[in-house]
Amino acid sequence: MSATTALRSLSINNINPHVKEAKYAVRGELAVRSEEYRAKLAKGDTDLPFDQVIAANIGNPQQLDQKPITFFRQVLSLLEYPPLLEKEDVLLNQLGYKSDVIARAKWLLKTVGSVGAYSASAGAPGIKESVARFLEERDGFPADPKDIYLSGGASSGVNTLLHVICASPKTGVLVPIPQYPLYTASLSLLNAKCVPYYLDESKSWGTDIEAVKGAYQRAVDEGTDVRAIVMINPGNPTGASLSEDDIKAVIEFAAEKKLVVMADEVYQTNVFVGKFHSFKSVLRSLQKADAEKYKNVELASLHSISKGMVGECGHRGGYFELCGFDPEVQEEIYKFVSISLCAPVIGQCLVELMVNPPKPGEPSYELYKQEYDGIFSGLQKRATALYDAFRKMEGGSMYLFPTINLPQKAIEAAKKEGRAPDEFYAFRLLDATGVCVVAGSGFGQKENTLHFRTTFLAPGTEWVGRITKFHEEFMNEFR
Amino acid sequence: MSATTALRSLSINNINPHVKEAKYAVRGELAVRSEEYRAKLAKGDTDLPFDQVIAANIGNPQQLDQKPITFFRQVLSLLEYPPLLEKEDVLLNQLGYKSDVIARAKWLLKTVGSVGAYSASAGAPGIKESVARFLEERDGFPADPKDIYLSGGASSGVNTLLHVICASPKTGVLVPIPQYPLYTASLSLLNAKCVPYYLDESKSWGTDIEAVKGAYQRAVDEGTDVRAIVMINPGNPTGASLSEDDIKAVIEFAAEKKLVVMADEVYQTNVFVGKFHSFKSVLRSLQKADAEKYKNVELASLHSISKGMVGECGHRGGYFELCGFDPEVQEEIYKFVSISLCAPVIGQCLVELMVNPPKPGEPSYELYKQEYDGIFSGLQKRATALYDAFRKMEGGSMYLFPTINLPQKAIEAAKKEGRAPDEFYAFRLLDATGVCVVAGSGFGQKENTLHFRTTFLAPGTEWVGRITKFHEEFMNEFR
Repeated sequence: MSATTALRSLSINNINPHVKEAKYAVRGELAVRSEEYRAKLAKGDTDLPFDQVIAANIGNPQQLDQKPITFFRQVLSLLEYPPLLEKEDVLLNQLGYKSDVIARAKWLLKTVGSVGAYSASAGAPGIKESVARFLEERDGFPADPKDIYLSGGASSGVNTLLHVICASPKTGVLVPIPQYPLYTASLSLLNAKCVPYYLDESKSWGTDIEAVKGAYQRAVDEGTDVRAIVMINPGNPTGASLSEDDIKAVIEFAAEKKLVVMADEVYQTNVFVGKFHSFKSVLRSLQKADAEKYKNVELASLHSISKGMVGECGHRGGYFELCGFDPEVQEEIYKFVSISLCAPVIGQCLVELMVNPPKPGEPSYELYKQEYDGIFSGLQKRATALYDAFRKMEGGSMYLFPTINLPQKAIEAAKKEGRAPDEFYAFRLLDATGVCVVAGSGFGQKENTLHFRTTFLAPGTEWVGRITKFHEEFMNEFR
Repeated sequence: MSATTALRSLSINNINPHVKEAKYAVRGELAVRSEEYRAKLAKGDTDLPFDQVIAANIGNPQQLDQKPITFFRQVLSLLEYPPLLEKEDVLLNQLGYKSDVIARAKWLLKTVGSVGAYSASAGAPGIKESVARFLEERDGFPADPKDIYLSGGASSGVNTLLHVICASPKTGVLVPIPQYPLYTASLSLLNAKCVPYYLDESKSWGTDIEAVKGAYQRAVDEGTDVRAIVMINPGNPTGASLSEDDIKAVIEFAAEKKLVVMADEVYQTNVFVGKFHSFKSVLRSLQKADAEKYKNVELASLHSISKGMVGECGHRGGYFELCGFDPEVQEEIYKFVSISLCAPVIGQCLVELMVNPPKPGEPSYELYKQEYDGIFSGLQKRATALYDAFRKMEGGSMYLFPTINLPQKAIEAAKKEGRAPDEFYAFRLLDATGVCVVAGSGFGQKENTLHFRTTFLAPGTEWVGRITKFHEEFMNEFR
């Protein structure tokens, strides 16, 4: 027993080693430093070479300039304080609420009772029915509310699914690299194996099925029991949307090897190029064509209120739908979610509003559409500005996870500071410009490549220019 | 490989065995059956021998008759739809909002930005400062916001702490029996050892320090690395409040054996007999008297918005405060909570409102106090009615976790159905009366004793009479 452990029960040397191993760069040291800069600026500090911190490390639109959608928030205000419903004339004539806002609030209150009450563990039944209708309309195939589980954001859904799947230290899960680090962090916590497969940067970060097969085979050869494959579509951090053929190839492989497909589809409305195809719709089409081959494919597809035009991360809402799961396994999933009682009920209500927004002809539709389209075009404009900027950068790239080719001198300087070269670059970028990104190593990247990841939610495009200017100066300094 | 595993990736035989092992009776088979009865009644079914299902299995006050506190919910309505703040005259003159509601909403919005944005991972800084002030006032000792972590209900706090503490299958945590089954379920999931210590029914379910010491020693002798002790104060399901001396004895033992004290204090305002003493205040007093002996005691104390007069379970809010933890361990705790990003922000705001309610003289104070006292006296009335009923029941008990002494014939009938005798009793109670309780085995009980656990949140006291009538008939049937 060391001197430290003798003082207390817990020391860094004797806590859960899997917690220690987990890495989560999105909110790591760089993010902490950016918060310190933000606090300095708030106190009126003028020593820093910038007057604003740009949090491009995490998708947190409402911390930046994205306004919540009026219809959603008007409904939520009534759910939080139902006595307002007794003053319909005031709501309608003086506060600008429309009749469909009032009707929806009444319906949701009937469904959940009170937003201050626990719901059923897998979510309020009425809301799950609404999600099922949305999925049927989106995919053209039936959806059963009993297979839908409302969760506290997609993160909580991923945590549930991986908890059930990871049976032993030999269990492996195929994870795309680069990826949102939730997957690797969760697998570390569960002491299971992350089986990385590399996305193909030369093909718009598409999924190369041969890379998946190779990664699978190497893992199996090493004794790993590969049980699932994570697909992030559209991709985070790469922004790529998978083609129908790519999805088919993955499902075919999953059917053959009996892998659970975990389809992280939280960016399904953030599609600026190409078209979103849901895994469910492709799976059902394949099953229609060849029932025998595909009937037992297990698919879990996840969605969230945090992304897209909704952007309500702070409300922690989402859901996952299961297809083809063994009923006994579903019972265990139910038990697992019941241990944390239920997802936040106001977040469940936001899920309902997201999947069932105002329709053409309804009183709130015009404003809803105007706000939705406004957010969409703002995101598109910034994505395009970044795309153009990165393309023009020396050694730059075409995607929102740009490659950076650093001079040898910079790599040596990083080494001296005990940092990976891309981390060194990201810290220098933050120190010089106030723009906080995530080093590519936080998301994973092929050996001997360097990237950084930036979101495109910050207002305006001026800060994009700060990045390109910094990059030029950095390259000149270390050339 | 069995036939089942050949069909799919996941079967009941190959999923995470620790998920399978976890038991969570509060939302188990009995609760599921009660939901079926509720659905039947809602459809107009008249076949059942009761016309109402009483959910006494789980503390869910707003599903029953507890109304949310007006001040809280008025503030939340403004947080959800901030443009209402531009209509102060309407709020004040037509909707009954007071000026302190508006001021608080403005302050909270300044603190969190938007309730739709992620906050810092351990919670919004301004809210943590407010919690610290509350703790200072409650305990008379300083509290540091950096040691406060806002969580999605106390369950999520318990999950975080146990995740960090449980380092290996040898790690043990002392847990009171009976207990709220979250602790045993979480330890099962983490593949750690639950080290049960039995509360003393003969002494109002108090903590018998000798029982704790005995349980500790037996576990250590068996090779268990006991690292922490869970204290539930006031007790769930027993309702007992610990005396200051009992708390001192536990802290002294924890100091001697270097155990983390996890003080679950979510019922701190539900005290009908005796007085609540916080572990923090007792610890700081002990440290004042003997700094050397107590300086390194690690205490994590948890609180929640779900219980007491707040009763906002559906909003999933709570916090824990750490005292005496190693800073490196606290960094790992921070990293762990950052993986799930942050607690629901509207729930964080409710934590702020709970710890900082209207004060005497402020515009909302009168109504707040009236509502608070009304809920308190309703709870007290029902607790007393149950206490009286259980005392009068044959073989009954004085506590809200009553002993049931079942006739041999009933025990045999239970065996035939493959159920534990107390489960058999609870199912019969539900089938006959619509009252859903939890069998004592779900909370843990000494061998050869039987109990059931009931909450006392359901409106009225008529249903208490249903229980006593059933009990009499049941005893007569199986005598």
